[in-house]
Amino acid sequence: MRRAVALAARGLGSTSPNPVVGCVIRDASGHEVGAGWHERAGGPHAEIHALRQAGVLARGGTAYVTLEPCNHTGRTGPCAQALVEAGITRVVYAVGDPDQRATGGAETLRAAGVEVVAGLLAAEAEAGNAAWLTSVRLGRPFVLWKYAATLDGRVAAQDGTSRWISSPESRADVHRLRAEADAVVVGSGTARADDPHLAVRGIEGVVQPLRVVVDTEARAVRPGARVLDGAAPTLIAVAEDAPADRLPGTDVVRLPRDGRGLSVPALLAALHERGVRSVLLEGGPTLAGSFVAAGAVDRVVGYLAPVLLGAGPAALDGAGITTLTEALRLDVTETARIGTDLRITATATAAPAAAPTAAPKER
Amino acid sequence: MRRAVALAARGLGSTSPNPVVGCVIRDASGHEVGAGWHERAGGPHAEIHALRQAGVLARGGTAYVTLEPCNHTGRTGPCAQALVEAGITRVVYAVGDPDQRATGGAETLRAAGVEVVAGLLAAEAEAGNAAWLTSVRLGRPFVLWKYAATLDGRVAAQDGTSRWISSPESRADVHRLRAEADAVVVGSGTARADDPHLAVRGIEGVVQPLRVVVDTEARAVRPGARVLDGAAPTLIAVAEDAPADRLPGTDVVRLPRDGRGLSVPALLAALHERGVRSVLLEGGPTLAGSFVAAGAVDRVVGYLAPVLLGAGPAALDGAGITTLTEALRLDVTETARIGTDLRITATATAAPAAAPTAAPKER
Repeated sequence: MRRAVALAARGLGSTSPNPVVGCVIRDASGHEVGAGWHERAGGPHAEIHALRQAGVLARGGTAYVTLEPCNHTGRTGPCAQALVEAGITRVVYAVGDPDQRATGGAETLRAAGVEVVAGLLAAEAEAGNAAWLTSVRLGRPFVLWKYAATLDGRVAAQDGTSRWISSPESRADVHRLRAEADAVVVGSGTARADDPHLAVRGIEGVVQPLRVVVDTEARAVRPGARVLDGAAPTLIAVAEDAPADRLPGTDVVRLPRDGRGLSVPALLAALHERGVRSVLLEGGPTLAGSFVAAGAVDRVVGYLAPVLLGAGPAALDGAGITTLTEALRLDVTETARIGTDLRITATATAAPAAAPTAAPKER
Repeated sequence: MRRAVALAARGLGSTSPNPVVGCVIRDASGHEVGAGWHERAGGPHAEIHALRQAGVLARGGTAYVTLEPCNHTGRTGPCAQALVEAGITRVVYAVGDPDQRATGGAETLRAAGVEVVAGLLAAEAEAGNAAWLTSVRLGRPFVLWKYAATLDGRVAAQDGTSRWISSPESRADVHRLRAEADAVVVGSGTARADDPHLAVRGIEGVVQPLRVVVDTEARAVRPGARVLDGAAPTLIAVAEDAPADRLPGTDVVRLPRDGRGLSVPALLAALHERGVRSVLLEGGPTLAGSFVAAGAVDRVVGYLAPVLLGAGPAALDGAGITTLTEALRLDVTETARIGTDLRITATATAAPAAAPTAAPKER
């Protein structure tokens, strides 16, 4: 199962709106005869890859799958049925499928006389599928907020200079985060100050994320902006009452405002509708503050440079938190040295309560 | 030598104004026959402890010492001579003594026919003696700035609440830092807001550090303040033109001002004169900013709580840095999980140029 979890991770960033799934098949004597992972939406599921590799050797064997095999026919047939037909006699899976439309695979397997074991390495498999599971449970994309700051929490100096606070290695690492996300989101401040490109560079065969600029007043993204090139799809989110579109040919979505700018829940709902299951928020302090205020930050990755400034904007602003007891508390889930910097990953302490979702789902 | 470095560390916080030193003696066949460390100023040096333990077994043996054996008579006799008299035929030391008055031990040993090897594990021994070496080279105490902040760099929420941003384990860890320092320094803001005690609690047999409050206007520390109890010595630093002393019986030093408050170099010189070789700066953002502006922060220990606030004071303020190229750049030298927090230790990148010192020195 540990190998299946590792295989699943290879699909991060290219399976959306599907989960990442890994599968290993062993024959009756315990030898591995097949392995695979879900590589991209619309392509075969992990089980099918593994079964094809195993061929007749699957008969009488055991399938280890990171997620409960699906029970419905989407672009591909139901995996539960495929496992039965291949003669698999035992299925071990880590995490149950929370999706109302795909669940039931375990029952189908049992009804066909297959032994079914659930929960093996569930925590590891959950962690590997955090984005997709969150999106199914909450009906909105999983949000990872990334920032780069000094030890004293500044994202720029007093005069606005910010290139480069973080190390080249950290900046390269951000491309990995982008590659694993379905969408990369920035705000108008970042668009105006940096004219960012937001596409993934330096990683071969990557599925480019959707580049999203939250440009409430429809003023920050100008014709010729780097984000409008053909390197990746782009979506500009503007307010319902913003000026008429000045960017012909660009995908623009009009969304309601809330007190502080564009409504974050409305933005996330719009992205979810487009099949976005995970968002890398690369916005500046203000947009990040809006996401925190909306309760829409699931994980934080901070690149901390061992630098002190003592002045300049802080990494997070206007999150609506006035006293310590209201603070957003996380768990440090990983730390790593990246070049001269420190990368800190912190994850929201308690998973928000599950919410049923009616959002469309392909798998 | 590795053992000698570890032994030396046991003296941290109680040898000032002397360095920490460890010594291991092996007989001619390589067996350890003596070991010791410099335990407190005025007490025997490490070599003497080790020689006493070895007795006649030292004859023909090798002494491993973390610092070049001293050559002068202070409160105790010169160690170089003691090693010769004990019949030691080989001395291996890590770091040369930078002190003009104590150096020359290696020459004395060689003149007496002892084989001398220098530089073994010099980096480790240097690191263990960083505070003392810095103080000798710069003629001022080594300064470690400690702060506790959120991931976004806030030391308090917008309404001023700050208890507790850091975990109980982090707060306990600070007492270890205090125990290793000769002085603990806070500013008037902290004195006023927290009425801190600043003594070491929870560590047995500790030599209490000097508690120092930088109270420029002589208004923050009032009679009955916790820092004025008998748990540890206390020094109040006020401006030359501050009101007359309102705290009879308290040690008060009057110092010049600079543009931003009390002169940090003057404060450090006054502390150095009193034998303080290492300072733990526990001041708030303003005092820390003054120290950074004065180029007087040698190491930073940040306790980062996985918490986001988005508002409230930053850890460091008014360091006089306006653009990124002027930033204080450090190296991350250690990271550790302390309870739910992350402790980051960062050390000034390049050692400042050596400056001759005429400051009094006991060793």
